[in-house]
Amino acid sequence: MRYHRTPVKNKALCIVGLGLMGASLAMALRERHGATYSPILGVARSPDTIRKALARNIVDEASSDLAAMLKHPAMQDGGIVVMCTPVRTLVEHLQQYRHDFPPGCIITDMGSTKGEICAAMDTLPESVFAVGSHPMCGKETAGIDVAEGNLYINRPWILSRTRRTDAAAYATVQQLAHDAGAVTLEIEATRHDAVLSVSSHLPYALALSLMTTADQASLNESMIYPVMAGGFRDTSRVAASDVSMWVDILLSNGRTITNTIRDFQFNLDQLTALIERQDADGLRAFISAAADARRNKVKVK
Amino acid sequence: MRYHRTPVKNKALCIVGLGLMGASLAMALRERHGATYSPILGVARSPDTIRKALARNIVDEASSDLAAMLKHPAMQDGGIVVMCTPVRTLVEHLQQYRHDFPPGCIITDMGSTKGEICAAMDTLPESVFAVGSHPMCGKETAGIDVAEGNLYINRPWILSRTRRTDAAAYATVQQLAHDAGAVTLEIEATRHDAVLSVSSHLPYALALSLMTTADQASLNESMIYPVMAGGFRDTSRVAASDVSMWVDILLSNGRTITNTIRDFQFNLDQLTALIERQDADGLRAFISAAADARRNKVKVK
Repeated sequence: MRYHRTPVKNKALCIVGLGLMGASLAMALRERHGATYSPILGVARSPDTIRKALARNIVDEASSDLAAMLKHPAMQDGGIVVMCTPVRTLVEHLQQYRHDFPPGCIITDMGSTKGEICAAMDTLPESVFAVGSHPMCGKETAGIDVAEGNLYINRPWILSRTRRTDAAAYATVQQLAHDAGAVTLEIEATRHDAVLSVSSHLPYALALSLMTTADQASLNESMIYPVMAGGFRDTSRVAASDVSMWVDILLSNGRTITNTIRDFQFNLDQLTALIERQDADGLRAFISAAADARRNKVKVK
Repeated sequence: MRYHRTPVKNKALCIVGLGLMGASLAMALRERHGATYSPILGVARSPDTIRKALARNIVDEASSDLAAMLKHPAMQDGGIVVMCTPVRTLVEHLQQYRHDFPPGCIITDMGSTKGEICAAMDTLPESVFAVGSHPMCGKETAGIDVAEGNLYINRPWILSRTRRTDAAAYATVQQLAHDAGAVTLEIEATRHDAVLSVSSHLPYALALSLMTTADQASLNESMIYPVMAGGFRDTSRVAASDVSMWVDILLSNGRTITNTIRDFQFNLDQLTALIERQDADGLRAFISAAADARRNKVKVK
């Protein structure tokens, strides 16, 4: 996928939410394309985050006042707003500040679900442009302290068009993703959420429920944690991820996730039945198919 | 836990099954305690494995004939038999060769479940000794080619007494585990299987069913594998493990595993209900508890 870039002068960037994703984006663009994206403005709720973002020169200016930042002179000439908060906050911001976005600006986001966000973008005023986006990366730890400029390098970055996406806005956000080091691909919002319900939200729901089951068992059995197997560590790892981010993901993709969980339960029930019937051949077939798929179809990082 | 070792002269070792676990044990003991464990005899079904075990000097002698190896002169003076095959083969061998084990020998194993194995050991002739054991390590790949002498270093190695365990036999197997580099702890066989059903067998069952669900979804959705998230990779990793080993684990601990799966399903149902009801507070509580447990109670390797 090649993209021929129209030379532009510098663009102002307003990053809303200076957690891992937002701060890492600022760092990535500053390190590689500091002249293109300038100034970089940051909006964060916590005074501590604002202080760190300025002290570490992650952004040029920072504030807790999103409306004021959107009025910044540099944003009045086709700036880019990147919304990096958890999904529900993001949707609220899109509604609350719909008339504060400067005309001609391009809004994008980093939300992990796309349906509700792109629906909110669809209804933005015609004076602004909006492209849904989801860079697929992260860490088990959150916050500005773990941000790093290399976070997006070679990671998939999904773009979803909205009714407020035109060719120039799409190209601008795609270029932003490339400039951060990511590899873009386009997926429609509803389809994105269906795919991610399998490849991301389901594994997370399993890790959570596994962890809950083990913790309950540990109340009556002191050996549960001391003899934890490596398989448990791997399978439960994602349960340690950022709580607020995941509350919003599960709520904003609820119906699709619960449908996917039901598909999973059907398969787990089948496996359980094979074990109960002591069906060695059936069990071998079930296990072999899963092992083959894991070995041959899941790309290693 | 300190163990004062009685000085002994060299002991013959007969390793039954020269896969990852058995061959790694031979390599570990040869590297660190070659004079103590000598000769090391190996039994394997495949001529190719026998050839490799000899060519790489992993064992001193190798054969596909277990009964003949048990008649080896070196084994007639209190040798150690370590059974390293999958669980069901192991139980069959314990029954089939019960009268072939040389008097005074000490039998132990590396089976991943302990109930059926220790029950089979309980009924061995009074002329032999037996201690159940389970070194908790492994790899996603199997076979002699991936064996390595460092496999057991600092890994937990569980010991389970049987009716054929006396103090000397227990001490001998404990020393063998220490000599391989492992850290031993004693857990009764039934309790072992209950603990492992939570900390190992459940995560495996989830990884299998997750992988099955994703593979089914991929039949109608081409994007499932291309946009695989890191969470999926972690959570499904153990599904790639050795098929034969796991068929036997699931069958030999069937009732306990299916009970543990039911506990898990109760928790997954609760999580699903919270999502369906869009209960943000309930969801936050469920997720926070699991995240805290994962962060604070699961030891990293």
